[in-house]
Amino acid sequence: MNDIFSIPVRVYYEDTDAERIVYYANYLRFAERARTEFLRALNIPAETAKDGSRCGFVARHVELDYKNSAFLDDLLTVTCEIKELKNSSVNIYQEIKKDQDVLCTINITLVYINIDRHRPTRIPETMRQALN
Amino acid sequence: MNDIFSIPVRVYYEDTDAERIVYYANYLRFAERARTEFLRALNIPAETAKDGSRCGFVARHVELDYKNSAFLDDLLTVTCEIKELKNSSVNIYQEIKKDQDVLCTINITLVYINIDRHRPTRIPETMRQALN
Amino acid sequence: MNDIFSIPVRVYYEDTDAERIVYYANYLRFAERARTEFLRALNIPAETAKDGSRCGFVARHVELDYKNSAFLDDLLTVTCEIKELKNSSVNIYQEIKKDQDVLCTINITLVYINIDRHRPTRIPETMRQALN
Amino acid sequence: MNDIFSIPVRVYYEDTDAERIVYYANYLRFAERARTEFLRALNIPAETAKDGSRCGFVARHVELDYKNSAFLDDLLTVTCEIKELKNSSVNIYQEIKKDQDVLCTINITLVYINIDRHRPTRIPETMRQALN
Repeated sequence: MNDIFSIPVRVYYEDTDAERIVYYANYLRFAERARTEFLRALNIPAETAKDGSRCGFVARHVELDYKNSAFLDDLLTVTCEIKELKNSSVNIYQEIKKDQDVLCTINITLVYINIDRHRPTRIPETMRQALN
Repeated sequence: MNDIFSIPVRVYYEDTDAERIVYYANYLRFAERARTEFLRALNIPAETAKDGSRCGFVARHVELDYKNSAFLDDLLTVTCEIKELKNSSVNIYQEIKKDQDVLCTINITLVYINIDRHRPTRIPETMRQALN
Repeated sequence: MNDIFSIPVRVYYEDTDAERIVYYANYLRFAERARTEFLRALNIPAETAKDGSRCGFVARHVELDYKNSAFLDDLLTVTCEIKELKNSSVNIYQEIKKDQDVLCTINITLVYINIDRHRPTRIPETMRQALN
Repeated sequence: MNDIFSIPVRVYYEDTDAERIVYYANYLRFAERARTEFLRALNIPAETAKDGSRCGFVARHVELDYKNSAFLDDLLTVTCEIKELKNSSVNIYQEIKKDQDVLCTINITLVYINIDRHRPTRIPETMRQALN
């Protein structure tokens, strides 16, 4: 499956904790980096305000499965795959891997909202086409 | 329900992001603070090495539901309730609230492991009794 | 010296790194929490936008001296003392202590700026009086 | 000066705060990534335990000058230059730049210590030669 988008992520001290492993919340930081680069590759800005629409994606639901730990200096691969695209939301599946070993899987549902009214909004057509 | 354990958490700049809301991974930091204080109240040390057993809890599965955003300066309440206690794991339900408004719910399964062998281990009897 | 402002800060896993000590950048997070609470005690909002002025304090210069390490579960004290108040800046001295042991000292100069123009601005008179 | 070591750093949501700029402590995270890669390029492991010596570098003194802010999505350059090498410490100068604009300078003194005794130790000869 070499058509799955991914980025490399190096583990630094900032990512680890006193158990000498990557702190459990930091996999979400790595996952967002991959999503941001995925969107960038599709020419979709990460920041809501950037395109003047005051709209953007926010996390609605996240599921993490921790299978194995990552350690200081590990070079990880973080994938990003769209699983389902709805009117105003998108479901994304992500893996955090060390070589072929899947350390953590992340299932995330993002909702496209208007930041000011904090209401779900239909994902614009050009963005839908890019995501498809 | 005044028998549910909770701690107050203030939102500082460090917790927010460029959307002016709390960064989505940081709710897991708040949740762990509450779990640590919950364990402390039960006299269970957070750090694996502390009691010489080289055993401790690590996250196995996490589910987050984001319902509403927290903002800079918000004073939040983070709860911690044990839902199920098994041989070597525990399921905990947590809410992150602003006044009565539930901003985020977290369902987390922790496994008690031996850090060196990274294998699930039976939760010691004294700890089980404290958790029950 | 019981007239020096201080707050307690507990060290959690999120604050530590793989050396089992508090990560060196995180002392700046602790320091900002103390400054924010110091300002709150003086009724000065932390966020620039909050009072409609679009002005606020940003860090200009920071000096940290690391004398000793903080560890997981440590209960620290973080102080905050104004050393000098100028037209558009303020110099603050902070200590991060464990009991009487000073682990880290921080000297920070904050400049009061207009966020939109990113220019130093005179600190308003009411705020000056509160800070004095 | 194309012989100054540097790495690129992309600014993600995790790095920003509610002022829509990079949070002041996070420049230290970026700086450490550059130092770690600098050491890696010299074949010096970052983690104290990795080479069995139980020795490693810890921060003793840090000075930061904030000149300008970095924003979401910025692609920064973080440099790393050794300024002085002593028996058991090293002084490093770092710049965080956006294009040619220096946003932040960092002066850091690291001390080589034995982690167990927490005492300064002479930097080993092979490491000295690599650093020179």
